[in-house]
Amino acid sequence: MSIGIIIGTNRENSISAKIADYYSDRLTERNLSHQVINLKDLPAGFVFSHMFGTADPEFAPFQESIDRHDKLIFIIPEYNGSFPGVLKAFVDALRHPDSFSRKKIALVGVSSGAYGNSVGLSHFSDVLAYLNADILGLRLKLANILAHFSNGAFTFEVYARFVEKQIDTFVEF
Amino acid sequence: MSIGIIIGTNRENSISAKIADYYSDRLTERNLSHQVINLKDLPAGFVFSHMFGTADPEFAPFQESIDRHDKLIFIIPEYNGSFPGVLKAFVDALRHPDSFSRKKIALVGVSSGAYGNSVGLSHFSDVLAYLNADILGLRLKLANILAHFSNGAFTFEVYARFVEKQIDTFVEF
Amino acid sequence: MSIGIIIGTNRENSISAKIADYYSDRLTERNLSHQVINLKDLPAGFVFSHMFGTADPEFAPFQESIDRHDKLIFIIPEYNGSFPGVLKAFVDALRHPDSFSRKKIALVGVSSGAYGNSVGLSHFSDVLAYLNADILGLRLKLANILAHFSNGAFTFEVYARFVEKQIDTFVEF
Amino acid sequence: MSIGIIIGTNRENSISAKIADYYSDRLTERNLSHQVINLKDLPAGFVFSHMFGTADPEFAPFQESIDRHDKLIFIIPEYNGSFPGVLKAFVDALRHPDSFSRKKIALVGVSSGAYGNSVGLSHFSDVLAYLNADILGLRLKLANILAHFSNGAFTFEVYARFVEKQIDTFVEF
Repeated sequence: MSIGIIIGTNRENSISAKIADYYSDRLTERNLSHQVINLKDLPAGFVFSHMFGTADPEFAPFQESIDRHDKLIFIIPEYNGSFPGVLKAFVDALRHPDSFSRKKIALVGVSSGAYGNSVGLSHFSDVLAYLNADILGLRLKLANILAHFSNGAFTFEVYARFVEKQIDTFVEF
Repeated sequence: MSIGIIIGTNRENSISAKIADYYSDRLTERNLSHQVINLKDLPAGFVFSHMFGTADPEFAPFQESIDRHDKLIFIIPEYNGSFPGVLKAFVDALRHPDSFSRKKIALVGVSSGAYGNSVGLSHFSDVLAYLNADILGLRLKLANILAHFSNGAFTFEVYARFVEKQIDTFVEF
Repeated sequence: MSIGIIIGTNRENSISAKIADYYSDRLTERNLSHQVINLKDLPAGFVFSHMFGTADPEFAPFQESIDRHDKLIFIIPEYNGSFPGVLKAFVDALRHPDSFSRKKIALVGVSSGAYGNSVGLSHFSDVLAYLNADILGLRLKLANILAHFSNGAFTFEVYARFVEKQIDTFVEF
Repeated sequence: MSIGIIIGTNRENSISAKIADYYSDRLTERNLSHQVINLKDLPAGFVFSHMFGTADPEFAPFQESIDRHDKLIFIIPEYNGSFPGVLKAFVDALRHPDSFSRKKIALVGVSSGAYGNSVGLSHFSDVLAYLNADILGLRLKLANILAHFSNGAFTFEVYARFVEKQIDTFVEF
């Protein structure tokens, strides 16, 4: 089993990146092979340079990173009430239609506001289901994240416990 | 493994019931234990008699039917652009919160119109994911059903093949 | 202008009913004609007795209540991560397809949990849009309601202000 | 009244662009002031160059194009079961939070496949409602578009009539 952790934004120093590191540490504790994939490292013009039949060689490592793993954890901040556009553009740029087929997916929503990107996870699960991926029912919706996470750890114990439960369930999924 | 097939409407002689029978036949061919659960058999007043802490003894067999199976196939007609209200009312009446927890789910949308209840499957998958069920990515959206299904069989070969593929994938899920 | 306020559950003494009364008071302050419609008063068996071409005479006043108003405010508690089944069953039982056509709609989500029924409002707006209703963009999502509302008033000032803003915007919509 | 028509993809020679031209012709017939905004003209790196507090001067005309209109028609092709990522990235890059506030919106889904982007319109309407835009209930879902549109006109009369109805309703909205 190999797990990819995708940071669903291209923002520098995002909270989502810190939460991805937190997940990475939890997987390391369990001796689970994994890799963090950060959308901030995408080629800046990929929305134009790697779409509609045109290939950008700098995009290739991202396709390989997705292909390498049979399970993927998406850390998805809430932008304008849904997932970031760059995350969907990344999905649109990947090889169609099999890049996610039968992969196992776990979803983690993150918001500074009150709703933990619950609507955005709903939207993104439709996209992944359309691409034939199987999604773990247990979606995490981490709201008010600035109050609940600092220095690389959750200060809100409920969230820490939910992460453990989600990972344990996902490993068996 | 035991599979429940839920007919997601209380309409008499619904097309969804006929499609449930079709799925039942395909499971019988594979020697898979299963049961069809038809919402038309619900006690007529369950939305009032088996809610909010009040128990209707006539509802109990429905709870047992859900509890008995580890996998569930929902056949869901499109009513007003989503799932039928009676289906969600049925979910609301079941024991909370574990009635669907970690169950494996397959979704089949049915419509006489053009869209195969694609939006309703999106909605219903949110409900089931909220209840911690794991949903097969491959959702079927059977549109224009009156033109594509008659005398207990699909006249549109593409749909027949999709059903086989969905069942085979679901058995391994 | 006449406004209907629909309590989206059949639970006795629901919080949603109290919030409907709160909206009613705000409309009275503005001298706006309105009526509260409570789904708990529906005939208990309407899901069977007023569907699929069969008419229940006890349902008729509910159809008239919807027909009477050109604007509707829905107060919608979160049940299993979405709107209550009884609310959708009510919509399914109304005359098709014009019961909501071109009506103006405002949506208010209510939850004891953290998410204010944001996903359920998304689902319900799809249903109403399908039925050709126009929905005010400003949807209210009232989370943690037991901590924020008591004795008929909001103890969380932010919510009180949002209600005022929503009503003022809705009146002009 | 001034209407912006947004082509929701950056693909060259897209069908959506042709449908935008069709809408433009219908607005011209009605002597309605309007402008077509094509996402293919966006600066190629805007997802990185005009985000997170960094301004790309080449993006400014797009912000002005949105600000100029009080009504917007979005033509949205279906990519991977939802709206194109580039469209959401465009929304994310616009001034926050008022770029769409109280604007009137009409939605048109386009797909070569069977479902007319009905799910993607559901998703995008959540984004716009979050941003306080008011969305016309009558959403068009143009499926099997390659069979139903050619040489700049609909060959499927039903779709042509729906466009007329949508525009007439939108003008009064």
